[in-house]
Amino acid sequence: MTDAPGLMKGVLAAVLTPLKSDGSPDDARLARHCRWLLANGCDGLAVLGTTGEANSFCLKERIRIVEKLAEAGIPGSALMPGTGDCALPNAITLTRVAVKCGVHGVLMLPPFYYKNVSDDGLFAYYAGVIDGVGDDRLRIYLYHFPQMSATPISYGLIERLLKAYPGIVVGMKDSSGDFANMKGAAKRFPGFAVLPGSDDLLLPMLKEGGAGCITACCNVVSALAAEVWRGFHAGRDVSAAHERLTAARKTISAYPLSSALKAIMARITGDDAWLAVRPPLVTLDAAKRAALFQALDGIGVTLPKAA
Amino acid sequence: MTDAPGLMKGVLAAVLTPLKSDGSPDDARLARHCRWLLANGCDGLAVLGTTGEANSFCLKERIRIVEKLAEAGIPGSALMPGTGDCALPNAITLTRVAVKCGVHGVLMLPPFYYKNVSDDGLFAYYAGVIDGVGDDRLRIYLYHFPQMSATPISYGLIERLLKAYPGIVVGMKDSSGDFANMKGAAKRFPGFAVLPGSDDLLLPMLKEGGAGCITACCNVVSALAAEVWRGFHAGRDVSAAHERLTAARKTISAYPLSSALKAIMARITGDDAWLAVRPPLVTLDAAKRAALFQALDGIGVTLPKAA
Repeated sequence: MTDAPGLMKGVLAAVLTPLKSDGSPDDARLARHCRWLLANGCDGLAVLGTTGEANSFCLKERIRIVEKLAEAGIPGSALMPGTGDCALPNAITLTRVAVKCGVHGVLMLPPFYYKNVSDDGLFAYYAGVIDGVGDDRLRIYLYHFPQMSATPISYGLIERLLKAYPGIVVGMKDSSGDFANMKGAAKRFPGFAVLPGSDDLLLPMLKEGGAGCITACCNVVSALAAEVWRGFHAGRDVSAAHERLTAARKTISAYPLSSALKAIMARITGDDAWLAVRPPLVTLDAAKRAALFQALDGIGVTLPKAA
Repeated sequence: MTDAPGLMKGVLAAVLTPLKSDGSPDDARLARHCRWLLANGCDGLAVLGTTGEANSFCLKERIRIVEKLAEAGIPGSALMPGTGDCALPNAITLTRVAVKCGVHGVLMLPPFYYKNVSDDGLFAYYAGVIDGVGDDRLRIYLYHFPQMSATPISYGLIERLLKAYPGIVVGMKDSSGDFANMKGAAKRFPGFAVLPGSDDLLLPMLKEGGAGCITACCNVVSALAAEVWRGFHAGRDVSAAHERLTAARKTISAYPLSSALKAIMARITGDDAWLAVRPPLVTLDAAKRAALFQALDGIGVTLPKAA
């Protein structure tokens, strides 16, 4: 585990974005969901990530989401909004808003439209954001998710960024599922927070110096992830919790994650308003929801009670 | 060739976006470039596409680019701006602006962040744009570019869109390089304009009912493409022009296209301001520029004179 002060550690949810009936983000429900997550084992809240459908919202909507969470009193120290964007000006604007709102840090996708871009180009992008924001309170967690962004964050790029911007580029969410890559990053860059993007890798990475995890499933099973995290640091055997967490992940990720997790939230809260997603995602139909719930019940995962 | 009235036909450039020294789009230079292209063989101007770095510009910049071209007197009948975006509200806003500016049609990428999305989700996205714009002057050309968007436009999706929105969804730019896919689409959907995204496929697709082409290289070799297009329709043998065009494409596409074409424009105009690109793209270095120019000279491609 990294002991560098001020780094994000522990269990983070890649927070879902609930929608109103007109398809706009439901700020009040999102704030409630965030509070409920903090009460159910989450140490941090990675809003506006892949699970949160960030790229399906325009800049104005994303700015509003961050500002409304701050206004609602969600502690900035727990917030790690996604602020990456294909367009540098958008990334600068949103990151500025996030820093102004007092967030702990931001999770930043690379520009993900062009493929096979050079590390020079990616370095210029991140440098452009950091210089454009121009605020030494900025903390950036790089977002390595080649399956979705198709733009990997290489060790070479991390090295250049750490050298050019020490204390600003401080960590990485690794959603590649490639354990060797995250383990290697934690070893190669001491003090750099490496957070896997899937629940089953939380425990293996804790053993390799990982800082915690940022996962979609922690919208509904953060208590289980917290049991792994706290138990591990207290020296307890957490293999049973790890197994249940891994089974939950496997069951839920058989479906498109955001849609499946929103279906589970609808079940927990008894409110089908939770089901709505933005295109190109689609709501899980009733048959798939029933199959998902049956599978979850079958593995004995206890869902938390609604707030 | 499709004979449906009002469809875009002929040679279109996927127009480069020149930048000012502060990195912002250079509206005046872009308008000049557009006029020069129309004088050098282009029938249409696909601004704000992949080559034009559209996704590297924020919505405000993209709106301004479309409005400034209209203000500069570039004929709307020649314009096909790219208006697709991961976020539905952005696509609606930009498409509305384009229709209001009197463009012939828009070229629309699917939302390209999420991978393996369903046709239901993509249909909902396009339907959301069309219903959101709510203007029967709207003409949409779908943009099939799986290598970059990683989100293919299937025949099934085209079929549903043509049925739901006849006269609005009217064509497709196919940048897949997959000749069988574009040939199949032209055959399967009579009256649907299929425009390949690479120069070497202009002639083969003309023989299969293609409507023309939309290519990056037509920023500098549109006269050659026009020779193929016009000669073919006049019943002349255009194999020599086709070979030169194909050789030019092969030579230029050995480099990242936008950077290489901006380098060629800098050479043509004698103005290195043309070299600038937005991150994550990088400017072609002097050695690569020299090698590219030498290769182009070697194949005997004559570049047009500056305006």
